[in-house]
Amino acid sequence: MATTDKASTRDRLLDAAAELTYRQGVSIGIDALCRSAGVSKRSMYQLFDSKDDLLAASLERRIPLYEEQLTPGPQDPATPRERILGVFERLEKFSAQPEYRGCPFLAALVELKDPEHPASAVAGGAKQRLKEMFRTEAELGGARDPEFLARQLMLLFDGASARAGARIETLDGLTTTTATVLLDAAGVE
Amino acid sequence: MATTDKASTRDRLLDAAAELTYRQGVSIGIDALCRSAGVSKRSMYQLFDSKDDLLAASLERRIPLYEEQLTPGPQDPATPRERILGVFERLEKFSAQPEYRGCPFLAALVELKDPEHPASAVAGGAKQRLKEMFRTEAELGGARDPEFLARQLMLLFDGASARAGARIETLDGLTTTTATVLLDAAGVE
Repeated sequence: MATTDKASTRDRLLDAAAELTYRQGVSIGIDALCRSAGVSKRSMYQLFDSKDDLLAASLERRIPLYEEQLTPGPQDPATPRERILGVFERLEKFSAQPEYRGCPFLAALVELKDPEHPASAVAGGAKQRLKEMFRTEAELGGARDPEFLARQLMLLFDGASARAGARIETLDGLTTTTATVLLDAAGVE
Repeated sequence: MATTDKASTRDRLLDAAAELTYRQGVSIGIDALCRSAGVSKRSMYQLFDSKDDLLAASLERRIPLYEEQLTPGPQDPATPRERILGVFERLEKFSAQPEYRGCPFLAALVELKDPEHPASAVAGGAKQRLKEMFRTEAELGGARDPEFLARQLMLLFDGASARAGARIETLDGLTTTTATVLLDAAGVE
């Protein structure tokens, strides 16, 4: 395969893995993944050692867009409090879309049930980065205990994404109101 | 099969399904389930129409013990506020056990990704019952908006169970403190 062919085959596999696992779960078979990507199993195994590696790489590839859509940019003029609330505003907006199935990283962790799985490590890293963003803003906003507030906000975020993704909750205003309560209690103005 | 044999075969299948899906996920195969239960596939299909039905029945069977372990009994002399906080105290205690993998009902919902699946209906019902318990106590405790507080407590509960089950959080004191913040803000004394 030429280098560009390889790249496009790789991208097709990563996109198919990301989309199919998001809709159907990580137990999706290799055959279905390759079929959806239009790639032979032989080509797949030339690019990835295993399905586990493909899963991990597909989650890794989602991180930049996920963060761009969810977290405030460096130029965002809002206050730390507004920047934290903005994450929940965007979560509420995304969760209202019919194709929403919850946070892809939390879902992978729940489904894999194995902290040692390479995809769990990637997913845990993505969650850790969101927590660190909350902690940084909490610190800038004068929270009494920024780390503790960040952990509370992650409980809220993950509970909301799981429940909305499973269609047992509608977030409209629920997470922003709850985040406001937590910010107030933590002393973030 | 005699009636008692049937009952014991059924119970063995339900127990195996509950245990294996909790540890490994709902994608566990029928063969592994039957092997673990020591039951032939033929006997399995005499008792259950499909794996979906077996999954749903195994979740249904877990509900009484789950509620007994987690929620306050009718004779519990504690105040509504203490009864709500007691749920989170017990959640924190369970989540510290090495075999803890999160709430089995939320996990099933996240994994199945299908609100129409018979097991999703059972799991959603169990979550709904916990929410109703919270709402009843919130009402008794004088919450300004008992339904809203109950929804907030469910976000907290499910976020905590998912994160602790995935081993990316340790709850010790985290959910009780956060529930206290929410109870205070809702006016529950």
